[in-house]
Amino acid sequence: MRIRVIVPIIVDIFDEEVKKEFGSHSSSEVEEIEVVHLDKGTASIESEFDEALAAPDILNKVIEAEKKGFDGVIIDCFGDPAVKAAREVVDIPVVGAAEPSMLLACSLGQRFSVVTVLENVIPMIENIAKVLGVYEKLASVRSVNIPVLELHDKDTLKNALFEEMLKAIKEDKAHVLILGCTGMMGVADDLHEMLAKEGYDVPVIDPAAASIRFLEVLIGLGLKQSRLTYMKPPEKERKL
Amino acid sequence: MRIRVIVPIIVDIFDEEVKKEFGSHSSSEVEEIEVVHLDKGTASIESEFDEALAAPDILNKVIEAEKKGFDGVIIDCFGDPAVKAAREVVDIPVVGAAEPSMLLACSLGQRFSVVTVLENVIPMIENIAKVLGVYEKLASVRSVNIPVLELHDKDTLKNALFEEMLKAIKEDKAHVLILGCTGMMGVADDLHEMLAKEGYDVPVIDPAAASIRFLEVLIGLGLKQSRLTYMKPPEKERKL
Amino acid sequence: MRIRVIVPIIVDIFDEEVKKEFGSHSSSEVEEIEVVHLDKGTASIESEFDEALAAPDILNKVIEAEKKGFDGVIIDCFGDPAVKAAREVVDIPVVGAAEPSMLLACSLGQRFSVVTVLENVIPMIENIAKVLGVYEKLASVRSVNIPVLELHDKDTLKNALFEEMLKAIKEDKAHVLILGCTGMMGVADDLHEMLAKEGYDVPVIDPAAASIRFLEVLIGLGLKQSRLTYMKPPEKERKL
Amino acid sequence: MRIRVIVPIIVDIFDEEVKKEFGSHSSSEVEEIEVVHLDKGTASIESEFDEALAAPDILNKVIEAEKKGFDGVIIDCFGDPAVKAAREVVDIPVVGAAEPSMLLACSLGQRFSVVTVLENVIPMIENIAKVLGVYEKLASVRSVNIPVLELHDKDTLKNALFEEMLKAIKEDKAHVLILGCTGMMGVADDLHEMLAKEGYDVPVIDPAAASIRFLEVLIGLGLKQSRLTYMKPPEKERKL
Amino acid sequence: MRIRVIVPIIVDIFDEEVKKEFGSHSSSEVEEIEVVHLDKGTASIESEFDEALAAPDILNKVIEAEKKGFDGVIIDCFGDPAVKAAREVVDIPVVGAAEPSMLLACSLGQRFSVVTVLENVIPMIENIAKVLGVYEKLASVRSVNIPVLELHDKDTLKNALFEEMLKAIKEDKAHVLILGCTGMMGVADDLHEMLAKEGYDVPVIDPAAASIRFLEVLIGLGLKQSRLTYMKPPEKERKL
Amino acid sequence: MRIRVIVPIIVDIFDEEVKKEFGSHSSSEVEEIEVVHLDKGTASIESEFDEALAAPDILNKVIEAEKKGFDGVIIDCFGDPAVKAAREVVDIPVVGAAEPSMLLACSLGQRFSVVTVLENVIPMIENIAKVLGVYEKLASVRSVNIPVLELHDKDTLKNALFEEMLKAIKEDKAHVLILGCTGMMGVADDLHEMLAKEGYDVPVIDPAAASIRFLEVLIGLGLKQSRLTYMKPPEKERKL
Repeated sequence: MRIRVIVPIIVDIFDEEVKKEFGSHSSSEVEEIEVVHLDKGTASIESEFDEALAAPDILNKVIEAEKKGFDGVIIDCFGDPAVKAAREVVDIPVVGAAEPSMLLACSLGQRFSVVTVLENVIPMIENIAKVLGVYEKLASVRSVNIPVLELHDKDTLKNALFEEMLKAIKEDKAHVLILGCTGMMGVADDLHEMLAKEGYDVPVIDPAAASIRFLEVLIGLGLKQSRLTYMKPPEKERKL
Repeated sequence: MRIRVIVPIIVDIFDEEVKKEFGSHSSSEVEEIEVVHLDKGTASIESEFDEALAAPDILNKVIEAEKKGFDGVIIDCFGDPAVKAAREVVDIPVVGAAEPSMLLACSLGQRFSVVTVLENVIPMIENIAKVLGVYEKLASVRSVNIPVLELHDKDTLKNALFEEMLKAIKEDKAHVLILGCTGMMGVADDLHEMLAKEGYDVPVIDPAAASIRFLEVLIGLGLKQSRLTYMKPPEKERKL
Repeated sequence: MRIRVIVPIIVDIFDEEVKKEFGSHSSSEVEEIEVVHLDKGTASIESEFDEALAAPDILNKVIEAEKKGFDGVIIDCFGDPAVKAAREVVDIPVVGAAEPSMLLACSLGQRFSVVTVLENVIPMIENIAKVLGVYEKLASVRSVNIPVLELHDKDTLKNALFEEMLKAIKEDKAHVLILGCTGMMGVADDLHEMLAKEGYDVPVIDPAAASIRFLEVLIGLGLKQSRLTYMKPPEKERKL
Repeated sequence: MRIRVIVPIIVDIFDEEVKKEFGSHSSSEVEEIEVVHLDKGTASIESEFDEALAAPDILNKVIEAEKKGFDGVIIDCFGDPAVKAAREVVDIPVVGAAEPSMLLACSLGQRFSVVTVLENVIPMIENIAKVLGVYEKLASVRSVNIPVLELHDKDTLKNALFEEMLKAIKEDKAHVLILGCTGMMGVADDLHEMLAKEGYDVPVIDPAAASIRFLEVLIGLGLKQSRLTYMKPPEKERKL
Repeated sequence: MRIRVIVPIIVDIFDEEVKKEFGSHSSSEVEEIEVVHLDKGTASIESEFDEALAAPDILNKVIEAEKKGFDGVIIDCFGDPAVKAAREVVDIPVVGAAEPSMLLACSLGQRFSVVTVLENVIPMIENIAKVLGVYEKLASVRSVNIPVLELHDKDTLKNALFEEMLKAIKEDKAHVLILGCTGMMGVADDLHEMLAKEGYDVPVIDPAAASIRFLEVLIGLGLKQSRLTYMKPPEKERKL
Repeated sequence: MRIRVIVPIIVDIFDEEVKKEFGSHSSSEVEEIEVVHLDKGTASIESEFDEALAAPDILNKVIEAEKKGFDGVIIDCFGDPAVKAAREVVDIPVVGAAEPSMLLACSLGQRFSVVTVLENVIPMIENIAKVLGVYEKLASVRSVNIPVLELHDKDTLKNALFEEMLKAIKEDKAHVLILGCTGMMGVADDLHEMLAKEGYDVPVIDPAAASIRFLEVLIGLGLKQSRLTYMKPPEKERKL
């Protein structure tokens, strides 16, 4: 399998780590992981506004991926930007990070919480759960109040996540935890252990891991988006 | 009040009719209705893809509206494209056409149906109802199978709408009808009469009418979007 | 437009303030606001029992309003007493205060809370949201523990509302606030400012303002209740 | 046990049959069934309007029942008129006919349908299910198009019910049927047999039977309405 | 009426108390209550695992009950183990303890909480509410952290229940309380009083009491499970 | 990875085909697939009764799998029998066939339908969707009226499935289809093509394929059931 990962921001600072991370999460079936970022858009995605600005170039990169023969595309952001639009325009499966994480979580426990970067994106994430149809399983969306571009300090991040995850378990009755930003790389296993030490043996889902494995399933089984939900857009003038 | 109406397509063919229609639906409180269309985007909106391509320039036009001193903005499309993003970036109220229509419908009867242009946009409209929290009131979304750019033949349109509305009432138990495309201008009253003649005295909501009147309420009462839902996007590099 | 406001209680103490308040909230389209109270019923509405006793005379006053040529009726109470019955018997639009407030709130943010007078009416208000179909958007209903007839001390009221609204935001995740009693007149703007000073720039909806503006929309657009939901009651013997 | 049955209409034509029917459905624990009708109200209940007009005198009769030492009260109508108000003002259990029928139905099968008299009351019945919290279990509400006061022709009634019940099973996937008017007396067993002959061995719930047995359970177990939901109305002036 | 109560565990320690308790809760219509326990299964039911192991012998005892001419069966456990399977194989009504308790609770107040033995069974109880269709009414499931086989110390039990019930009322907004284990015998009335003394006049439902009275209703009215939901299992080889 | 597939019936007729099928659906990561059937239970699973009888030996086989060092277990039935109990007692992931299929379906389109063997199991499958939290996405469950043990006639099966799938699309608005029995092996691709020829390019999910790939994801990512949902059963006497 050949998979393109689109990091939907205009800076390349995550590219290398993303490639390494996806490589470590993917199965042996994956022969190639290509990581690309955007030419146009924003430096990070922390609002509906950022998503809207990133969408057109994400779609370019998705269409290009199909032309180049990739078997599937990951839009590497927990806001799932342009995922639905992308599914309309290509015949290969496209996933974001939120849907696969939430669906995995549904199978692992009674309720899940998402811990994300900033309060700004909490409604966006809640709305993804509503549209996906799993809102009843969502215990809460919490934030660590760290912007995407400051996630590199892993210790600060882990401590902040740990604190919010404990609250999610104790106050919101979460039984499964999801890292709510694809920039929170390489910390899921540690968090799992930190929680286990407190007596909470709960799954901590890394959204990058979830997205590539979920995409592998679709590719492996020859499944792609339903054309009754994601119809091909009619031909018309489009000026960009 | 001064209101900007953004017709989120790159052609000007609707501009004049839109101006006339909004003028006829607005109250005497509205002093100015400015109609603009997009420089970049698509010729019509009939898919998630079209919405994604239109969003950046819609946002430009919204930001510009605030700078020019407009009191509120209507994004004149039943897909409510970029409405949430727009609410983040300005301090004046912004509405699309779907939300106001659905909320009015909730107050008028037990269940409503939307009759839109093409099957392609049915899931988008269902998802708006889910996110808005009124999905339980949505009886169905039906389509007349006429593209946006062919809506000008009003007789064909009215007959097709009439047929689907009858089915919505008889088969889906709709008690209120909504025209599911802002291009379906000037037909709501006739449809109301046609249905009344069949014994169904049901409201038929014109989405343009609903959107301007709903926006007038917000402006009139000094209400705008909550900053807890629609937080201002953090400053960062954005390249378009 | 000519609008009748029915204050559904048997005392006239609110009449003058109500008239002034509705006048200040309505648009220039409203030519006349007539305020009437009941001949039979209760001194205030703080229970299902009070609503039931008030309903017959509310209905008299609604029917009378239509006969006298009013264009629409407001039943000025957050319990929406007799609103559904009234819609059956007249051909002009009828609104209470809760439905319009809740529908406006749905468009302004992710979740809303209502702060009302006494705990007694909390289930009634929750049930209105259930029947209206917007229960998923209701964060909570809270009360200030002040009876309707003691709402005149505005400072006490504002402080009590402020405290509960802060809790609604912090504990219940409310993003929009609604004053849950039409007797809480003239305090919405102050509450908005008090909350803004705490860093919460959230809409505070005055139910009287919401109801008259919402009714204006219906009248302005020639819309009224669906006759499939609100069928005319069959003729029969009725003894009162 | 001593139970008062309030037939919430101003005519006495059902009184005798009601007494006989409730007698046949009740257990040996019931020592006395007193049937009363209203002094003020309407000749039948077929609208929200009728319910509103009947409510005050229903409440008189409920309060009187408690004073006379009855152990519980049945408001004998499928619209459950004034049930919630009544629970506030007395310390004995009060039931209508819809709630007990729907709750029994929930325990007997996957989904239930109600077949009632006129289309007019369908939204009212749907709303009862919404407030009761069992709307997901409601397959449909159908009507036989026979007014309450013409229900005495049992053969016509049974045939009409049978036809609608078959549709409820085949088209709406109902697994349990409820007679949606307390005037449909003495036909449930026949309907059960008629459906069984068609291969559908499904429960047919008589609402009078359900209400008296449900009330017996409450009385027998010493249970009554929660005072956190149904608080005592505050003292105040009430003029009727 | 003759009723068999199946205590779905392999020890007889509860048998005598169960018989006495059910006797005290049943009406005079019940002529015989036979209490049996299992030959195969587990010493108590505190997990999905225990339920699965108990189910086959529960089903034996249910089938036997019908053969011996009992009019109905109670599976005396709040997990409702094997209740649905049992309804498929016999023509007499079968109830567990959870469904009847929850349905009674729905009629008594706005929301109910269940207080059970161990955290282990909380998801099971939540899932019963989901399948029954009353999840919206479930405020919370709490536990006292006392295993089933240590429930005999009534004072400890009552104090622990009281504490959790107070939390359910204050923190979870419960208006009705349910004892979430059939081993919590003989304490409901005391709890009701203890809560009333704190100012909370709320129903406390004993699940054994609810189950036998609910079953009596079904037997008394000749109602049993719908054969469209609980079809007879097809004939086939079965090896146990 | 080493995976045990438990065919939860007492006959071996499916074993060989199951092994071949799972082999064809699994990825190259799977080194061993062991297929076992039950010693005690029933010849097929077509009721809650069959599930209950099969559960104890399924659990034996799951516990044994963990002891033998398997990395995960599939309970190969669309009723997901004993899946929740199994998750409590082992530390390796356990999946049935329904949950993975439904979760995949959620990601592929707006609504899914399941087409199963007999009407008997429709409520069971609906209830799985309710507990999993995806009931809103379930368009319908339909049946082909062919018992499990007669599924070997693939042409008859395919034609019957095709007919029901067309109805699911046209009448129930399904956008994704799921084969609702793990005995329906080797037909998904053909059905996909047959539907595509009719103009419906929709995913057809084979539940065996979905289950093994979903399990691979869990194993691959080191994820297993949350111990807050699936707590270890307390030690106690158990007699089988």
